[in-house]
Amino acid sequence: MPELRKDPISDRWVIIANDRVRRPGDFVRQSVPNVPSEHPCPFCPGNEDKTPPELLAHRSGSGANQPGWSLRVVPSKYPVLRVEGDLEREGDGLFDRMEGIGAHEIVIESPEHALSMTELAESSIEQVLWAFRDRARDLRNDRRLRYVMMFKNYGEAAGAHLEHSHSQLIALPVVPKRVQEELDVAKRYYDFKERCIFCDMIRQEMKAGVRVVTETDQFLVVEPYAARFPFETWILPKKHQSHFEESGAPQLNNLAWVLKTTLRKLERSLERPPFNLLVHTAPLQDTSCPHYHWHIEIIPKLTRMAGFEMGTGFYINPTPPEESARFLRDAGLG
Amino acid sequence: MPELRKDPISDRWVIIANDRVRRPGDFVRQSVPNVPSEHPCPFCPGNEDKTPPELLAHRSGSGANQPGWSLRVVPSKYPVLRVEGDLEREGDGLFDRMEGIGAHEIVIESPEHALSMTELAESSIEQVLWAFRDRARDLRNDRRLRYVMMFKNYGEAAGAHLEHSHSQLIALPVVPKRVQEELDVAKRYYDFKERCIFCDMIRQEMKAGVRVVTETDQFLVVEPYAARFPFETWILPKKHQSHFEESGAPQLNNLAWVLKTTLRKLERSLERPPFNLLVHTAPLQDTSCPHYHWHIEIIPKLTRMAGFEMGTGFYINPTPPEESARFLRDAGLG
Repeated sequence: MPELRKDPISDRWVIIANDRVRRPGDFVRQSVPNVPSEHPCPFCPGNEDKTPPELLAHRSGSGANQPGWSLRVVPSKYPVLRVEGDLEREGDGLFDRMEGIGAHEIVIESPEHALSMTELAESSIEQVLWAFRDRARDLRNDRRLRYVMMFKNYGEAAGAHLEHSHSQLIALPVVPKRVQEELDVAKRYYDFKERCIFCDMIRQEMKAGVRVVTETDQFLVVEPYAARFPFETWILPKKHQSHFEESGAPQLNNLAWVLKTTLRKLERSLERPPFNLLVHTAPLQDTSCPHYHWHIEIIPKLTRMAGFEMGTGFYINPTPPEESARFLRDAGLG
Repeated sequence: MPELRKDPISDRWVIIANDRVRRPGDFVRQSVPNVPSEHPCPFCPGNEDKTPPELLAHRSGSGANQPGWSLRVVPSKYPVLRVEGDLEREGDGLFDRMEGIGAHEIVIESPEHALSMTELAESSIEQVLWAFRDRARDLRNDRRLRYVMMFKNYGEAAGAHLEHSHSQLIALPVVPKRVQEELDVAKRYYDFKERCIFCDMIRQEMKAGVRVVTETDQFLVVEPYAARFPFETWILPKKHQSHFEESGAPQLNNLAWVLKTTLRKLERSLERPPFNLLVHTAPLQDTSCPHYHWHIEIIPKLTRMAGFEMGTGFYINPTPPEESARFLRDAGLG
């Protein structure tokens, strides 16, 4: 019998079609190739002049925009938003517009032409997390910027255009609608219960266990109760924290292990699936957010009903999260 | 300079990246094949026993579930929801669930193994629209059902599993979140202005002209101001009407021409793109809806950032709607 489940955080119903369970092997997916293509890569050392000048780099000794780095952050060569301009809104009858103010940055995760984040050493993944943190802290100094999306597209089917492992930041002058909805629901819950809805969910999931993929003393990895997509996976800090960029060294160190382990489990279960990874965090300028709890959402790209689901906000998920959690637990590694 | 635009109906900001305009030829897309595959087709005449018994058919003379029909509606063989069961909601700590009550039906649009709706005669398309109307009217008699999604997935990349031209209906015991948001915004506008927001938008778009694709005395076809996707196209009845299923014969007759013309323009401009087509209509049981206005949304599947955009509700559209409207107008045909 199919089941309708409601996600408490987004207030969204999802059909869990549990009578036609899809196992990892049932998805028609494009595995991401694990052999590098022969195109010259603008992200490899020696090609620093193929990107705009770096905003941040981890390097020992060498000069800016020269080889010798272990991580670089550069502005996107094809930015979807730009820093220059002003924020005036303008009406046109019913419609509203403003200039596309913001920032769009690329985190080049490693000098090696790694095709997947899972090929990186934990220390390199930790560097990526530090880069997210440091760039977010810098961007919040621009008071026009209200939100920073930190994300990773892996594989062409998930929107990646270059194979050298990289992540992105987009800073926006508005809070994205889905994030605002999460904030609103979490705020209502907090006003009512004086507790964080994510903290309550973490406690409940740890007790139930059936949707848990793995955990450490600091992080919980779960398949959410009303997962929209097969193998949708969330990583949540156990201790309440609203902003990712407030994370300290012990957390980022532990998160590097958790992230690598989780991605390896997904890779092993689903044969290098394309995926999108997103950090959901509180708005940059909202310093007090006792109701919101940052977390990471990983969405493997296995199904194809995108347009329909984007049009209605109604998701049909053929894999119950209890099943995908079991597959990921059984994949070993942590 | 990229531009941020706000959709007045969903309250959603979209980045229109108009400095890297994408023309029809720039999209890496999979054209839908126009040669039939050799698999036996369960929707072709003579194979009526390969589907569950029909719920509705247009036929002259022949018996039910026999050849001789020009259109059939059958329950889905793999339904995502079922009619049997009860609607009790059940809590599980923070979470809510209910049985997956509803209906999932397939409209087999023609006895011919047409691969695209554009190959059908206008009279066949009109029959499909009548089938939507008649099935919605029948389903609303079940008071548990609150919403009917009428839609079409064309091409594998848009979620279609069979090539013989068909559409679907899914009746739900809840109103999908995006639809509820549209209803809420439209209601607030109506309470404030005592006018329908869609009617105001239609007037403004007709006056501006730049986003108009085509029009008849009864329908307007436009690229929406804050289009989320390249070549996203809406078909709106000019006269206010909240429920699709209240449409009469003259409207459905005219809509058949409008729909065929619009799909042919998209096919000609974009070389048989996969697409999702959705009828947005008012909830089945809400008989009075002066604030809502049914319409059709067509979303060609040309870009690939699905997971990211689903995660944030933030869309980046590389083709300004004024450009896509010009391409579609220039494609001729109507």
